[in-house]
Amino acid sequence: MAPKYKLHYFDLTALGEPIRFLLSYGKLDWEDIRYDDAQWPETKKKMPFGQMPVLDIDGKIYAQSIAISRYLAKQVGLSGKDDLENLKIDIAVHLFLDFHTKIGDWAYDPIPNSKAAKEVDLKDKMDFYLKKFEEMVKENKGFLVNGKLTWGDIYFVAPLKYFKALVKRDFLEGYPLLQELVKKVESTPAIASYIAKRPAGDR
Amino acid sequence: MAPKYKLHYFDLTALGEPIRFLLSYGKLDWEDIRYDDAQWPETKKKMPFGQMPVLDIDGKIYAQSIAISRYLAKQVGLSGKDDLENLKIDIAVHLFLDFHTKIGDWAYDPIPNSKAAKEVDLKDKMDFYLKKFEEMVKENKGFLVNGKLTWGDIYFVAPLKYFKALVKRDFLEGYPLLQELVKKVESTPAIASYIAKRPAGDR
Repeated sequence: MAPKYKLHYFDLTALGEPIRFLLSYGKLDWEDIRYDDAQWPETKKKMPFGQMPVLDIDGKIYAQSIAISRYLAKQVGLSGKDDLENLKIDIAVHLFLDFHTKIGDWAYDPIPNSKAAKEVDLKDKMDFYLKKFEEMVKENKGFLVNGKLTWGDIYFVAPLKYFKALVKRDFLEGYPLLQELVKKVESTPAIASYIAKRPAGDR
Repeated sequence: MAPKYKLHYFDLTALGEPIRFLLSYGKLDWEDIRYDDAQWPETKKKMPFGQMPVLDIDGKIYAQSIAISRYLAKQVGLSGKDDLENLKIDIAVHLFLDFHTKIGDWAYDPIPNSKAAKEVDLKDKMDFYLKKFEEMVKENKGFLVNGKLTWGDIYFVAPLKYFKALVKRDFLEGYPLLQELVKKVESTPAIASYIAKRPAGDR
């Protein structure tokens, strides 16, 4: 019997969104359970590592966004065809993680002088990664790696809305190939119909 | 023909060490290229994302420690037997990454008041993860997941020397099952002979 999935996450794109895109892409049987901030203190206690997203697969729960995404990608045919293709996807995904970490380290820094110090070269640090991503798309026929759609593209595109909201600008301006990639992923029919009905939050 | 590997990394355990353990475990044909701090500014320019470790596989270079480790694990038989076992390994590996990040965020914080604020509950944050790891080993027959040796165990054990040096204490004190796991991994014959001849740095 086909497995039943339940995604537990905040009412945000961010780290839950690659999972939602993959579940949608594969037309899997899934439920999109969203929590607001008021529910979080109680919910946190039930989560295996006090974090979300968490994916329930037939009643068993699994944490860690990248781990879950790689697993789902395998189920829906968005992994590589061999170990080397998978290595290239994983390298791209960890490069996004480095990119996200630069943004998050600045955005969530609670100490004002520390946050201000990170803000000085935040744009330069982001552009370092964005240039790499743009080059990768140029060399891979319009995709990030392997010359075809993989979960690497989905892991890049899905959380962009959230990270753009954090930095309060469209950091893809000036990166036409990355903008094309976003359109390509978001217009994939099953993903487009998920996006059309997703809750209209601001991030 | 069997591939030739060259690992480029600092003369440290840290993020290079899981790769060295895996190359040793599989008795692969590999070269251990170590850089000192004086060589780094020039070397950095040659690295694909300005970072190490980088693995050269038959003349092509690949970055990102976790991506490389997963790839090598597959080559040497330390992956899971199916997608679900691989998911469980990946969850553990990302949990170590969260643990490492807590330590690194504190250790490398250049702003004194920010570093001091992180130090207040650093031990509590570390113990949160260490308790989870200890529980995992209890539930998985002496290994972190799947009841057998996987690259997850190697990814946990190999860089410990470095993280212990950063926090200047043996944070495995009070976690007997984790200490047992370290002994088990480090006494695996091919890994033990690598350790016996590795450069005797302090971390």
